Amino acid sequence: MEKKENGLDGKQSGRVINGPTNPMVTPLLNDLYQFTMAYAYWKAGKQSERSVFDLYFRKNPFGGEYTIFAGLEECIKFLANFNLTDEEIDFVRDSLPGCEEAFCDYLRGLDCSDIEVYAISEGSVVFPKVPLLRIEGPVAVVQLLETPFLNLINYASLVATNAARHRFVAGKSKLLLEFGARRAQGPDGAISASKYCYLGGFDATSNVAAGKLFGIPLRGTHSHAFVSSFMSLDEIVDKVLRSSDGKSTCKDFICLVQTCLTKIQNSSSLQGIFSETNQSELAAFISYALAFPNSFLALVDTYDVMKSGIPNFCAVALALNELGYKAVGIRLDSGDLAYLSTEVRKFFCAIERDLKVPDFGKMIVTASNDLNEETVDALNKQGHEVDAFGIGTNLVTCYAQAALGCVFKLVEINNQPRIKLSEDVTKVSIPCKKRTYRLFGKEGYPLVDIMTGENEPPPKVGERLLCRHPFNESKRAYVVPQRVEELLKCYWRGNADEAREELEPLKELRNRCIKQLENMRPDHMRRLNPTPYKVSVSAKLYDFIHFLWLNEAPVGELH
Amino acid sequence: MEKKENGLDGKQSGRVINGPTNPMVTPLLNDLYQFTMAYAYWKAGKQSERSVFDLYFRKNPFGGEYTIFAGLEECIKFLANFNLTDEEIDFVRDSLPGCEEAFCDYLRGLDCSDIEVYAISEGSVVFPKVPLLRIEGPVAVVQLLETPFLNLINYASLVATNAARHRFVAGKSKLLLEFGARRAQGPDGAISASKYCYLGGFDATSNVAAGKLFGIPLRGTHSHAFVSSFMSLDEIVDKVLRSSDGKSTCKDFICLVQTCLTKIQNSSSLQGIFSETNQSELAAFISYALAFPNSFLALVDTYDVMKSGIPNFCAVALALNELGYKAVGIRLDSGDLAYLSTEVRKFFCAIERDLKVPDFGKMIVTASNDLNEETVDALNKQGHEVDAFGIGTNLVTCYAQAALGCVFKLVEINNQPRIKLSEDVTKVSIPCKKRTYRLFGKEGYPLVDIMTGENEPPPKVGERLLCRHPFNESKRAYVVPQRVEELLKCYWRGNADEAREELEPLKELRNRCIKQLENMRPDHMRRLNPTPYKVSVSAKLYDFIHFLWLNEAPVGELH
Repeated sequence: MEKKENGLDGKQSGRVINGPTNPMVTPLLNDLYQFTMAYAYWKAGKQSERSVFDLYFRKNPFGGEYTIFAGLEECIKFLANFNLTDEEIDFVRDSLPGCEEAFCDYLRGLDCSDIEVYAISEGSVVFPKVPLLRIEGPVAVVQLLETPFLNLINYASLVATNAARHRFVAGKSKLLLEFGARRAQGPDGAISASKYCYLGGFDATSNVAAGKLFGIPLRGTHSHAFVSSFMSLDEIVDKVLRSSDGKSTCKDFICLVQTCLTKIQNSSSLQGIFSETNQSELAAFISYALAFPNSFLALVDTYDVMKSGIPNFCAVALALNELGYKAVGIRLDSGDLAYLSTEVRKFFCAIERDLKVPDFGKMIVTASNDLNEETVDALNKQGHEVDAFGIGTNLVTCYAQAALGCVFKLVEINNQPRIKLSEDVTKVSIPCKKRTYRLFGKEGYPLVDIMTGENEPPPKVGERLLCRHPFNESKRAYVVPQRVEELLKCYWRGNADEAREELEPLKELRNRCIKQLENMRPDHMRRLNPTPYKVSVSAKLYDFIHFLWLNEAPVGELH
Repeated sequence: MEKKENGLDGKQSGRVINGPTNPMVTPLLNDLYQFTMAYAYWKAGKQSERSVFDLYFRKNPFGGEYTIFAGLEECIKFLANFNLTDEEIDFVRDSLPGCEEAFCDYLRGLDCSDIEVYAISEGSVVFPKVPLLRIEGPVAVVQLLETPFLNLINYASLVATNAARHRFVAGKSKLLLEFGARRAQGPDGAISASKYCYLGGFDATSNVAAGKLFGIPLRGTHSHAFVSSFMSLDEIVDKVLRSSDGKSTCKDFICLVQTCLTKIQNSSSLQGIFSETNQSELAAFISYALAFPNSFLALVDTYDVMKSGIPNFCAVALALNELGYKAVGIRLDSGDLAYLSTEVRKFFCAIERDLKVPDFGKMIVTASNDLNEETVDALNKQGHEVDAFGIGTNLVTCYAQAALGCVFKLVEINNQPRIKLSEDVTKVSIPCKKRTYRLFGKEGYPLVDIMTGENEPPPKVGERLLCRHPFNESKRAYVVPQRVEELLKCYWRGNADEAREELEPLKELRNRCIKQLENMRPDHMRRLNPTPYKVSVSAKLYDFIHFLWLNEAPVGELH
């Protein structure tokens, strides 16, 4: 895939920044109105007016009280390579009625060399109303960033949050696997889900493309089709398996497995529990073990878990064990996972005990049947023996809430603060170019986020500060911070040669996410009725918001 | 973006087929287990066994009784260009523990020259359990198509169905605009949403990239930021506007607008309804009209719809009218849309009447505030004056149900029918390579879909036929079809030189969708408690399913 390069050659301060992961992310991935507005700004001679926009969301998703911020890297990659090709410009011209040719020349010269982006670090825990990004630059150009930025951040942050919530309910010790490629909303619904679920705390993905692009660990075994593609043991032609240490060779692995199956059938605890198992399933398991003797993991529910799948699996696992290999475990994809996983564990433990096979009881049980936060929580309450959860549909499509509502609002133009009013108070924007801080309390937890005007002095450690709710005059609190963290850092400085934040590897973003989540006060994290985290403005900003509001709102006439 | 080409050079019978729209759709957009299985098949010497897989879904989405099939074209484009690059093969090898080098040679030679795909035509109305695609070919290759095909079809069909449902509730006469780019699940969540919403009956999109790629009509005006970026009328430097016929020039359009505003204020019906309007809003509207005098459409809710937005808009529209232009209308993005649209219409009609401006009352009212099926339905029940709906989040993310559950099941291998069992009857697969037909009744409506074995004689017009529920023995009906349509047509025939279906333009798929929906019996289409459409199997297939089931299911032991 070609990477588009603009006048900056994707470089800033000598560093090359690649284009977005998906080459379809171009300036045309935009709402038409960004171009009609650009044209109208240009016609009015306003296109270069210096504007400041905030990108933020109004409500945490999934009924929770926190969100994971993700998608920033893709935005910066988009910025760094922003330019319109001649073909794209022709298309824009033809889409705008009465468009003058000189506007095309204007578009031809556009890049992001005059844009500044301040952002919260990707992977951070974030809250409503606090800007995730503050974008400053010529108004027509910044508007052209609105739709792509929202597109790149909304889903990324939503699915990262969903992953973090699944991790929270599953607990630290479980292996979490993202299995969503087939049900995701399109190809990069799949690929970016894999990326941002990893960021949000998942351990691995089934998606090979995502593994290759982002270095995410891959997991996968076989499907029901593999099992039912076998008819009988006669199909297996090459029955030879070398032992793990390479010192001996089993000439008929099928025969060894059959012997092991008989051993299990005759063992004291399992006698009479099952009779004849499905032979096509057994053939499939043996074939799979011959292909992957070091990492044998089988799907055991094609015919019947306890009557066929588990005995067949255990026979193959025992045979592998005799040759010095260690089978990994099984996957359950249907039925009552609490009950089945417990029964499976008992079966494994019975073999460990009766047949004296060390660690056989510790084999991994993976579950993967339409799981989500609720079902994992319910499993925990019932008790289960699942070690790894494979989660697909509900995770990647964010089934419980399929969209995050980030918005992109003008807060200042030509140094004049701007406000967007609404009859719905939650939709009123917070004006002014702002700075934002996270204040930490004595116990090390974050206490409150505060927004101030750009030129206000920053909050100081140990100094008492009034934090006000931006719209509710009676909600306010004095805070004496023990630590102050400025949230918005410069990630893009256009042509300017000053230092800016580096884009970090995915693994670092994941570490930040996990660490920040661990550092949250537990009541904000509860699944049921979590405590809202406080988001505030300085007293000075509060006063200014309400001054501007009254200034802009028309006064009604009563008759 | 480069298109990858395989040994077939993307050609079949001399025709070149381009790669998928998104260049990220490669054979690596796959679950790892497709590659582990391919390896295990290859190790067992089974990789070329002739297999037949069905792709189908089990349940219609959104509580409805129909689904629109979409995504086929992308699948065929993927097939036609299927090949693995050396770099991709290296990555696969490194991902498979103990992978032999000879397997890489096998992967290197893979293409879809030995694959056949039969499918229902894209844009068709389809039902659960009936195969949308039947894919035949070497088992290892067909398995590598599973994940990409499911990914390309699941979301496409889901969002097309969602669009069709929105069209159904909005009615034929309304303009439906897809505005989802910013909230979609990633970049091609946006681009493919635009494509498939158009297929499902939408009229236009705001997404410029989708307009360019697929020729979908584009729509868009301006945002709240455009309005609030203006401070006062003094900002407008160039106030000149030529009349529509080019014969005269208005030297001060601002002055003309102000005169018009006064006229409205003094008109008999509107006197005293509003007083001073927001001047920054008026400046924005005037600027926008100067840029687009032929297509002026304004967003009127930045400050206050009835006190500011509508009077300001009407003043500009009247001024344009005096110069021979016709304004298009307004957009409402907040508030009570039923009430506001009605009030706006009254305002427009009062101007038409009082100031004698023909057609002023007929201007278009567009609504766009978090709309979905339910809100449009509720608006219809309350009564409203909206002409066009702009629908975003709920439409493109399929918020009401974010995933469709298409599956891909082995139904035959080496001419041996295969079945996948489950304790949940709805999850049992229907074995055999099948043909499928739609039977139409006297009134022209489709009555039932029927699946038969491949070699059974096809249903005949006028001949009585027993249609059986595949799993419920008491549900059966005799049908005398007045018309019979075979559903599965050949869309890919590998290297064979025989005729196959051409890929049709998007517009044709949209026409098919609209036409087939119009031809459905109305009770299947109801939003509340729709009647399920019947899906059946032939008597012969019924008997065979149940024979195979008993054959494969292990018999329990009671103690």
